[in-house]
Amino acid sequence: MPLNPNASIEITAFRWVPEFAQGVVRDLRARWALEEAGLDYKVRLLDQQRPPEYLLEQPFDQVPILRDGDLQIFESGAIVQYIGEKSETLLPSETRERFRAIQWTYAALNSVEPALFNLVLIDVFYAGEEWAKLRRAGAEEFVRLKLQRVSDWLGDKHWLEGDRFTIGDLIMVTSLRFLRHTDIIADFPNLSAYVKRGEARPAFRRALADQLAVFAENEPQPAIIPQQEGAAA
Amino acid sequence: MPLNPNASIEITAFRWVPEFAQGVVRDLRARWALEEAGLDYKVRLLDQQRPPEYLLEQPFDQVPILRDGDLQIFESGAIVQYIGEKSETLLPSETRERFRAIQWTYAALNSVEPALFNLVLIDVFYAGEEWAKLRRAGAEEFVRLKLQRVSDWLGDKHWLEGDRFTIGDLIMVTSLRFLRHTDIIADFPNLSAYVKRGEARPAFRRALADQLAVFAENEPQPAIIPQQEGAAA
Repeated sequence: MPLNPNASIEITAFRWVPEFAQGVVRDLRARWALEEAGLDYKVRLLDQQRPPEYLLEQPFDQVPILRDGDLQIFESGAIVQYIGEKSETLLPSETRERFRAIQWTYAALNSVEPALFNLVLIDVFYAGEEWAKLRRAGAEEFVRLKLQRVSDWLGDKHWLEGDRFTIGDLIMVTSLRFLRHTDIIADFPNLSAYVKRGEARPAFRRALADQLAVFAENEPQPAIIPQQEGAAA
Repeated sequence: MPLNPNASIEITAFRWVPEFAQGVVRDLRARWALEEAGLDYKVRLLDQQRPPEYLLEQPFDQVPILRDGDLQIFESGAIVQYIGEKSETLLPSETRERFRAIQWTYAALNSVEPALFNLVLIDVFYAGEEWAKLRRAGAEEFVRLKLQRVSDWLGDKHWLEGDRFTIGDLIMVTSLRFLRHTDIIADFPNLSAYVKRGEARPAFRRALADQLAVFAENEPQPAIIPQQEGAAA
């Protein structure tokens, strides 16, 4: 069980987030990688309103950060690569294979995720705005082009580079999951199966359960109206 | 002079692109890194209309690809990291310093560039569209928030992690240059100086000159109207 309050590796995560974000906050990537690598870790929980000092650690005010001894880094791509270097399960050590995996990590984060996240912005954050309504069809078309590119590449392979799961798949699967509020991925059967294959990995399931458990424990209570039982009117 | 037709390293680039893209096409990053590292390279030029087979090498139909012996990778972030591992000038070998640099490469590509490139889409590709007009102010505000974050982090440091230029700076500077069609960066004097510091490096200047030279050589000629000199009317 990698969650261990005495672990030397620490990541940051949120104490609670609204339901639309539960299960996709990016500390999931760090948790998943740590589970795949079998590395113990502990979690530093942050409120949604981070203290201003957090910017000195993470200039973009995001999670996760990873700390390991005197090393402290942010950006889920870099964190997953750091964990990957500790585990052949995630990142082959041979240069050619290693960089094929690393290229997919960058591809997921720069050539795929921005298009997908744009649709999340349109559908979730800016849903009521006129520009979002006018832009939606074009934005979905661009998402579908990106998915077609990944789908064509994947073909009937299990993972992006063949039989071997890598950090590139870990980041791609978690990027594709940003579309879970839509049915778009279902139109690409091999991508849909690919995401399910990632989600079925025991390490993913533990990582997801651990992220969600924190949110469940810290669910804000609806403001309680005192019942004033027994109070004399 | 790293450009060498007999080099073992090959990158792909475009033969010609419209003026708005000249000087920012992403092969500039590979060229700059190769110049910093002092590694010879050759260029495989592609027409704007790539052959369909190019997708088998680059699933997103982009440049650059880097080939070095039996290694072939795409995504400028991965390429620059690969080159960085061959040169202490770009990427320290010590784990902590190395991952601080790598984190900035990912940060530039995932936490900064998408916001900036969105403004390029709005101002250049979709300038006439109603949604683009309605969205522009909000998109610029988001760009300014991202720039403020980088500016606050940078402070009066020379480079993102202090005195030492790394691949993180190379990718950040080339990302910030996507805003060159606006005056926004001028409102952040330390960022403006940072970009100029990057652009003043001899390796950058050679890389830029070499990219632009190809476009100048391959400038499409305006359709020539035959003069029919000497033809009898």
